[in-house]
Amino acid sequence: MESPALALQRHFLTGSSCFSPKPSLSLRLPAAIVRMSLREDGPSVSVVGVTGAVGQEFLSVLSDRSFPYRSIRMLASKRSAGKHLTFDGRDYVVEELTPDSFDGVDIALFSAGGSISKLFAPIAVEKGTIVVDNSSAFRMDENVPLVIPEVNPEAMVHVKLGCGKGALIANPNCSTIICLMAATPLHRRSKVKRMVVSTYQAASGAGAAAMEELEQQTREVLEGKEPTCKIFKQQYAFNLFSHNAPVLSNGYNEEEMKLVKETRKIWNDMNVKVTATCIRVPVMRAHAESVNLQFENPLDEDTAKDILGECPGCGVGRIRRDVSQDGDYGLDIFVCGDQIRKGAALNAVQIAEMLL
Amino acid sequence: MESPALALQRHFLTGSSCFSPKPSLSLRLPAAIVRMSLREDGPSVSVVGVTGAVGQEFLSVLSDRSFPYRSIRMLASKRSAGKHLTFDGRDYVVEELTPDSFDGVDIALFSAGGSISKLFAPIAVEKGTIVVDNSSAFRMDENVPLVIPEVNPEAMVHVKLGCGKGALIANPNCSTIICLMAATPLHRRSKVKRMVVSTYQAASGAGAAAMEELEQQTREVLEGKEPTCKIFKQQYAFNLFSHNAPVLSNGYNEEEMKLVKETRKIWNDMNVKVTATCIRVPVMRAHAESVNLQFENPLDEDTAKDILGECPGCGVGRIRRDVSQDGDYGLDIFVCGDQIRKGAALNAVQIAEMLL
Repeated sequence: MESPALALQRHFLTGSSCFSPKPSLSLRLPAAIVRMSLREDGPSVSVVGVTGAVGQEFLSVLSDRSFPYRSIRMLASKRSAGKHLTFDGRDYVVEELTPDSFDGVDIALFSAGGSISKLFAPIAVEKGTIVVDNSSAFRMDENVPLVIPEVNPEAMVHVKLGCGKGALIANPNCSTIICLMAATPLHRRSKVKRMVVSTYQAASGAGAAAMEELEQQTREVLEGKEPTCKIFKQQYAFNLFSHNAPVLSNGYNEEEMKLVKETRKIWNDMNVKVTATCIRVPVMRAHAESVNLQFENPLDEDTAKDILGECPGCGVGRIRRDVSQDGDYGLDIFVCGDQIRKGAALNAVQIAEMLL
Repeated sequence: MESPALALQRHFLTGSSCFSPKPSLSLRLPAAIVRMSLREDGPSVSVVGVTGAVGQEFLSVLSDRSFPYRSIRMLASKRSAGKHLTFDGRDYVVEELTPDSFDGVDIALFSAGGSISKLFAPIAVEKGTIVVDNSSAFRMDENVPLVIPEVNPEAMVHVKLGCGKGALIANPNCSTIICLMAATPLHRRSKVKRMVVSTYQAASGAGAAAMEELEQQTREVLEGKEPTCKIFKQQYAFNLFSHNAPVLSNGYNEEEMKLVKETRKIWNDMNVKVTATCIRVPVMRAHAESVNLQFENPLDEDTAKDILGECPGCGVGRIRRDVSQDGDYGLDIFVCGDQIRKGAALNAVQIAEMLL
């Protein structure tokens, strides 16, 4: 059943997600976005899930980028309420997330898991807040833009801050963001037909507790003790395993199908063929991905390096002509990105910046 | 220039490497191999590079499998000569490897690096020894069988122990062995056209010192210290990087091209298309590989599970129909194997067993 908030969203979003093949458009904000009637002292902001790994990174990114705000509320579960946080030199008390948390809030950055987003994001939207949601709850909803600012800013062209109407924008999954940051500029030049992705995913994707578990287990293993497994079923220290997301009836886990489905939505191309194998490796917070690309038209290695060399947010690493494909129709690329930063918090804050 | 030993090899090997499409043949030894005139008290064996990670595993595997031998010599560099080793309850002194080390030796298991193999394997062969070489030195020599016993035992059908003539047999690279143990039974049923491999390789592939480096660096990082880099240029603890093999002119590193070329040779199929991305991950000694397979004929997931379930040396894990390919023409499999054991020592000892 569609929530009232989503019905509201639909109103704004018609025709908003067409993929632009022009690379020069990647970072130019559509004119519609800058028309707004926001207060000059900046938006009021709420951070939902502020005590988590991504929540903490939201604060760090907001501060690093001097995000303009007139007020900021730190929201978390009852368990964390009352904790003190320092942000931009001021002391804040973490408040419990309730339906009243969004009164007068312009922008809310959510990273508290799918069930919290499902419950509270529609409430926030009804109150006129623009929610940037880091969970998977609304990503595949056809009325919700799924946005990587460098990739498909046009998807949020109809979302406006300051018009009194709330909206929901979804942050893609971390592995999708990191993959598409590199694959999209190549796709724009020479359409990707098929993509085979194998991931090397960090502990951070499962939150701060998973990072602590990796550290604790590693100490235990080095001391010759049995590793303590809480977050993951298996030993994580010096080990790797299939991503812990639930396995679906087709044998893929949810993390893998996110890469498949989110790529189609972000590229607005229902025909792009994607398969993924998602693996957790014992690293802390950077995801890596081995991406094999098959193109409709030739794209040589040097051109690919030039294209990526000019892309904001990309550093060029290994790019190889795939020897298993004829001519210049295939490339192997290896991509890495900070899972918490570009894979989550930075991307969400960039979306918020586009609203200003 | 071809060495005399290799000219000798050619004599034995004509027509030996045709790939058998019948899975039932996989572990049946061709009759020619069992005709031999070996002494009843077993062969004399030399282990070259006995103090290394694979050398130590040779001993462990020989002991575990009760490999019959009448004598065994422990050979290593001058630096390790004089060290004492216990094997099968007896004390041995490590001897320096010299040209005389192979006098009267029936089988030599080499794992001391390519340059040692290049120098000493031909000498051993001239002296009538059958060398099973774990280095890459002779793998792509057309006169040298490249053998995984479960995959292509027929490649060594003309190598005979006890006939007074030496021979060279190459052990494939660890990542090739682990990949093909799973891919071959499927390939036999429904020819593989193309294979995209991404590896997750353990420290052990770079030897015992690399395993120690991973352990030491991990301790250092946990103590907040700078990690000490000796074997690898980069931090290895809680990190990953492209395999440290030299990068070739096509951008692939040697490890990646081994997977491409060795697969062609072992399958005796110059048309099979393979690409690989080889990555070191901070695990100790098990390699894992994400393998995407494209078949000439349909092969469904359940049949694939049944096939692999019956394969000696395979345990069935994740097998998925690839959603990026039409119908049943593609599978995603994830394979793991002990790099030191099946990836090196066990495979070599299995080859030696086939000679008995």
